[in-house]
Amino acid sequence: MRFYDHIINESAPGALQTVPAVTNVPSAEYPRVYADGRVTFRVHLPQAHAVQLEGGQGLCEKPVPLTKDSEGNWSVTMAPRVMGFHYYWFNVDGVRMNDPGSETFFGYNQETSGIEIPDAQQISSDLVTFPVVPFYAPHEGPHGQLEEKWYFSKITGHWRRCFVYTPPGYDDAAHARDRYPVLYLQHGAGENETGWGRQGGVSFIMDNAILGNSSSFFAFMRGGVPKAKPMIVVMDNGYATYANPSSEHRDPSDQYAFPGTEAFGAVMVQELIPMIDSSYRTLADRDHRAMAGLSMGGMQTMAIALTHLDLFSHIGTFSGAQFMRWRPRPGIPERPPFDPHTSYGGVFADAAGFNSKVHLLWMGAGTAELAMSESTRENVAKLRSAGIKVKEYHSPGTAHEWQTWRLCLNKFAPLLFQA
Amino acid sequence: MRFYDHIINESAPGALQTVPAVTNVPSAEYPRVYADGRVTFRVHLPQAHAVQLEGGQGLCEKPVPLTKDSEGNWSVTMAPRVMGFHYYWFNVDGVRMNDPGSETFFGYNQETSGIEIPDAQQISSDLVTFPVVPFYAPHEGPHGQLEEKWYFSKITGHWRRCFVYTPPGYDDAAHARDRYPVLYLQHGAGENETGWGRQGGVSFIMDNAILGNSSSFFAFMRGGVPKAKPMIVVMDNGYATYANPSSEHRDPSDQYAFPGTEAFGAVMVQELIPMIDSSYRTLADRDHRAMAGLSMGGMQTMAIALTHLDLFSHIGTFSGAQFMRWRPRPGIPERPPFDPHTSYGGVFADAAGFNSKVHLLWMGAGTAELAMSESTRENVAKLRSAGIKVKEYHSPGTAHEWQTWRLCLNKFAPLLFQA
Repeated sequence: MRFYDHIINESAPGALQTVPAVTNVPSAEYPRVYADGRVTFRVHLPQAHAVQLEGGQGLCEKPVPLTKDSEGNWSVTMAPRVMGFHYYWFNVDGVRMNDPGSETFFGYNQETSGIEIPDAQQISSDLVTFPVVPFYAPHEGPHGQLEEKWYFSKITGHWRRCFVYTPPGYDDAAHARDRYPVLYLQHGAGENETGWGRQGGVSFIMDNAILGNSSSFFAFMRGGVPKAKPMIVVMDNGYATYANPSSEHRDPSDQYAFPGTEAFGAVMVQELIPMIDSSYRTLADRDHRAMAGLSMGGMQTMAIALTHLDLFSHIGTFSGAQFMRWRPRPGIPERPPFDPHTSYGGVFADAAGFNSKVHLLWMGAGTAELAMSESTRENVAKLRSAGIKVKEYHSPGTAHEWQTWRLCLNKFAPLLFQA
Repeated sequence: MRFYDHIINESAPGALQTVPAVTNVPSAEYPRVYADGRVTFRVHLPQAHAVQLEGGQGLCEKPVPLTKDSEGNWSVTMAPRVMGFHYYWFNVDGVRMNDPGSETFFGYNQETSGIEIPDAQQISSDLVTFPVVPFYAPHEGPHGQLEEKWYFSKITGHWRRCFVYTPPGYDDAAHARDRYPVLYLQHGAGENETGWGRQGGVSFIMDNAILGNSSSFFAFMRGGVPKAKPMIVVMDNGYATYANPSSEHRDPSDQYAFPGTEAFGAVMVQELIPMIDSSYRTLADRDHRAMAGLSMGGMQTMAIALTHLDLFSHIGTFSGAQFMRWRPRPGIPERPPFDPHTSYGGVFADAAGFNSKVHLLWMGAGTAELAMSESTRENVAKLRSAGIKVKEYHSPGTAHEWQTWRLCLNKFAPLLFQA
C-alpha cells in the first residue's frame, strides 16, 4: 500500500478527478477513487452471469450489483458511507473472488481484497494549504520501526509471530539507555497479527501521535495535538490453543475466551510478555504496560487485563466492550449481562481500589455500529454508576471497521502512561 | 505462514499421512501435503464447468485439470517436481482465481496463492533423529529481526518501503558498538519488497547461515556448515520511475533497466544506501557492501553494481545473469550477446583490475530452468576465458522458483565479506 502521495501530488483542489486507489497492485487502473469520495470498482469477467460487490460495514452493508459492458467488464460507482480502509470482494455467480487489482489483507479468516478510500476533504479541500496527510499516513520527519518477531511457544507447541513497533529514536545512540512503556494491541476475529501493521496503519498513527504531527487546520489553530509518550507497541496473533488441553499453563482469562483463542492469555502472560521484556528496552512493570484491542481483541483485553491487574494498568477496548455482555463461550452457560459488582470475578466491586490501580479504562466505538455503540454506552454508564472511572469515545458515523479503530488508537494513545 | 512445526510434531516416521500445508489460512483443510511429498488441492465451486490448477515452474509447467465430486468439490492430487514454495491459482471457467484456503504472496504483479511443500525426506525420514528443520525455517536459538522501513524518495516522488534484516545480536548491548556489512538483495519481475521476507524465508536462511545451524545429518558428520558473517540485508522494491523524466538524478545503470525500473539505480545509490548507512550501524564502504538479486533482480544487480564498483565489492545473481545477453530495454537497440571485453562499459576488460576490486562474483541457477542455467554456464565460461574470477552454482532439479533462490542465498551468504 502506498500512502496518498500520488493523490496529493496529482490532485488539483476541487477537481473531479479519479486515480487508482493506493491499495491497488502496480499498474491496476481499478478500483479508482474520485476527489469527491466516490469509488469505481471494475473487473473483467466476460463469462460471468452476475457479479456483486460485497464487503464490510461502511462500504456496503448489502451486496451491490455490478453491470456488464460489451467488453465483459463489470463495474459500479458508489459513494461509500465511510472513508478509510474497507475489506471487499466480488461475488461471481455465487463464488467469492478477490479483486485481482487490489492488495489482499487478512480478514474474515482469509486473504481479502482491501481498498483505502481517502477522505474527500483531504483530497479536495481548497481551504487548507497544509499538506493534507491523514494521521494514519506517513509524515515527513522521524519514524519508528515495525518489525516481525518469531518465538517458539511451548504452550501452543508452535512457532508464533508478533509485530513490534518501536518509537522514533529507539535505535539512536542518544536513547540507548532509555526504557519504554509497552502497549499490547490486538486485532479482531478473523484477522491476525498483520492487521494493525497493514490495514491499521499503526506505525504512522503512533509516529504522528508521538511527534504531535497533524495536518488538521483546526489542530494547528489550537496549537497542535496532544502528544503520546514514546512507547513500544506489540501486536500478536490472538488465536492460540493449548498443545496439551490439561495444561498446567492454563490462565484464568481462558474462561472468557472464544474457541480457538483459549490459550492466548496464557501465551501472553507466560511467554509473550517475558519475551518482549527480555528482547526490548521496556519498563517492565504494570504502571508501564497497557493492553487494548478491537472487537474480539477488546474482549480479550478485558479478559486478560482484568484477570492480571498485577501486569496491566491501562486498558482500552475499541468496539469491543460489548463482548462483556453477550457471546459467551460455547459449553459455558450464557453469562448474565455485564454487572460491575460481579463480572470478571468482581474486579470492579471495590471502585476506589480499582480506580487507584487502573490509571486508564477507555472504551470506544463507532456511532454507526449500533449494537457496539449502544453496549459501550450502557457498560460505561453501569461502570460510572458503580464509581469506576472510565473514558468513552464515539467516532461519528463510522461502523465496525478499521477507520473506527484507527480513530480509537489515535484518541487512546495520547492518554497512556501520562500519570 | 507457520513453519513446519505441526508437520514435525505430528508426523510418524514413514507414515503416509497428510496435513494442511503451512501456507494455509487458519482452519483451511486444503491444500493438504503428504509425507511422501504429494499434495492435494481442493476447492468448492459447485457452479463451475471446468477448473484447472495453474502455477509456477516446479509445480505445474502446464495447467492440471481438477475433477468434480457430487458435492461440488474440485480436486487433484499430484507430486510436484520440486519441494519448497510455489505460486499457484485456479483457472475457473477461464477466470483466474486464488485459492481461498491459502495465504497470498506478491507475484505475477498481483496477490497470488502460494503453497509450501515440505521436502519428503524432511518429514518422512526415519534414518535421522535430528529435528528435521530446513535451512529456511526457524531453529531454536537466537534470531535476527526483519523490519519495514519507509522513506520518502524525491527521485520518484513517492514514499517507498524496504525491509531490513538485522542479524542475531544486533540489538544486544554487547554489540552496541559493532558495525556490520550490508547485502542489498532484490526480488524478481512481478514481485515486490515483501518477496524475500515472506516466500524467500530470508530471516531464517540468514539466521541459520550466520549461526551455522543445520539439520543435515551429513553436515553434522562433516563438522557443521560454513558460517556467514553477521550482516544486514536490505530488500527494496525494484520498481521505480523518475518523477521528472529529465531528472538530474539519472543513474548510469538505467540504460540496462526494464520499463518501470529505470530509476531504481538512482534511488538505490542516491537515496537508499545513504538512508541505510545513516539509520543502521553499517560498515559504510565498498568492501562491506554486496548486491544480489533473483531473475530481474539479478539483472539489476549487474547493472547497478557494475556501474558502481566504487560502492560494491561482492556481486551475486540468482537465475539472473542471463539477462546480460537478452531482453534489451524497448526503445534501445537490441544489445549484442554478452561480451566480457565490451559489455557494461568494458568493466571486465581489465581482468586483473576487476579481480582485485571485486572480491566475489557469483552466479547461480537451477538446472531445471534450462535457458537460465545455460546462459549462466555460457556467461561464466566467457568470463573465465577473459580471466575474470567467478563462482557458479547449479541447484539440482530446481527451476525458476523460490527454492532455487533460497538455495542460492544459502550458498552465497557464507562467501560474503570473508576477505
